[in-house]
Amino acid sequence: MPEEQHITSVFDRDLEAIQGKIMKMGGLVEAAILDAAQSLETRDEELAEKVRAGDRAIDELEAVINEDAARLIALRSPAAADLRIVLSVMKISSNLERIGDYAKNMAKRTTILSNMSPINGSQAALRRMAREVNEMLKDALDAYIQRDAAKARDVIERDVDVDQMYNALFREFLTFMMEDPRNITACMHLHFMAKNTERMGDHVTSIAEQVIYLVTGDNPDSPRPKSDKTSVDATLSPEAKTN
Amino acid sequence: MPEEQHITSVFDRDLEAIQGKIMKMGGLVEAAILDAAQSLETRDEELAEKVRAGDRAIDELEAVINEDAARLIALRSPAAADLRIVLSVMKISSNLERIGDYAKNMAKRTTILSNMSPINGSQAALRRMAREVNEMLKDALDAYIQRDAAKARDVIERDVDVDQMYNALFREFLTFMMEDPRNITACMHLHFMAKNTERMGDHVTSIAEQVIYLVTGDNPDSPRPKSDKTSVDATLSPEAKTN
Repeated sequence: MPEEQHITSVFDRDLEAIQGKIMKMGGLVEAAILDAAQSLETRDEELAEKVRAGDRAIDELEAVINEDAARLIALRSPAAADLRIVLSVMKISSNLERIGDYAKNMAKRTTILSNMSPINGSQAALRRMAREVNEMLKDALDAYIQRDAAKARDVIERDVDVDQMYNALFREFLTFMMEDPRNITACMHLHFMAKNTERMGDHVTSIAEQVIYLVTGDNPDSPRPKSDKTSVDATLSPEAKTN
Repeated sequence: MPEEQHITSVFDRDLEAIQGKIMKMGGLVEAAILDAAQSLETRDEELAEKVRAGDRAIDELEAVINEDAARLIALRSPAAADLRIVLSVMKISSNLERIGDYAKNMAKRTTILSNMSPINGSQAALRRMAREVNEMLKDALDAYIQRDAAKARDVIERDVDVDQMYNALFREFLTFMMEDPRNITACMHLHFMAKNTERMGDHVTSIAEQVIYLVTGDNPDSPRPKSDKTSVDATLSPEAKTN
């Protein structure tokens, strides 16, 4: 059936083009994560501005990927398995766009924070967290291209480390604020950034879950290793500390 | 062409069934928003537990809607305009799922906060914010069903009010924390809840943008009236206050 084969290969070629755009988008988002964290640590407002301005290109890529994917579905009427791939592409680009947004939001705070005295070690801790998320994202996108469920599972497990880094930072910020009220404003902003980085990790996890769904057909809805413990951990209350 | 007509009406019937599930999901999410805010204000841990447990039903509905939509595309190969509707259904359900998640996260903090002394008026302010988001969500879903772009635009504009409520609360929390360090932990948790509510508003806005896209074909990517001002507002820094 040469006709059939022809249709398949056109679909594959179109899909490859879209996946190329996903990779490009991934590269931009990875850079945004690292640049946002570095601009905070080195108080580099120019770099922060670059991250803020660069988010537009990420948003535009998402729009293009969505249009391409919709056109591919409409033109090629892919069968169930292929359709699943195209839909996962749309979900992955949506997750990448959200991660880019968080990086932009982090970069926005660099400017206000660079006018305040630095909070002992927090900027470096935030950068370590951002670097870990960046590595996870790289691996999740590799796992997607290679259709490697084991690698995707590894990414999901590493999100626990990011959550732990966040929980540790949350405690640190509380302590700094209680020690000296002049730290409160800076810590509130740093806490935002830490929470944003933790959320980026959640979106990377979503991407990895899409990979597992693609490869195994397992619904990625299974309960994740969770996450932000600050909502349940009683030791965070000052009462508990003094008792 | 009776054949053609038959196909169209089967598509419409399937689409209606999916839209019915979106409405059901919307109803659950609306209730979760209000219950989460009320459980905080009345310190009702049982109600908070109900919100947390109820999130599973919301997640399951999203999975079902995604499967139904993928099946509809695969079986009926809808033309471009119909395909756009089905894809928008998937985006809307994804936004609803995220709003449900935020409500669950809010409810988690009710338990820890009910062991702390209440922060003057903040719980009521949070509830007003949640009520506004709930109204916006109702209207966004109405706008979707009625394909009413004007109503959707109105929803997007109202998100500015939610952002302003959030900014006012952020300032209040800073003040309370500086006045008395014993307020710090409670305020950090309340601030989380305020930020979550503000994010819910952003997701409602996304739903409204989908409606506009469906009706007018305009890309919803246009810059929104933004949003969280705490990242740029210098008056939030204590230095600025004392000068």
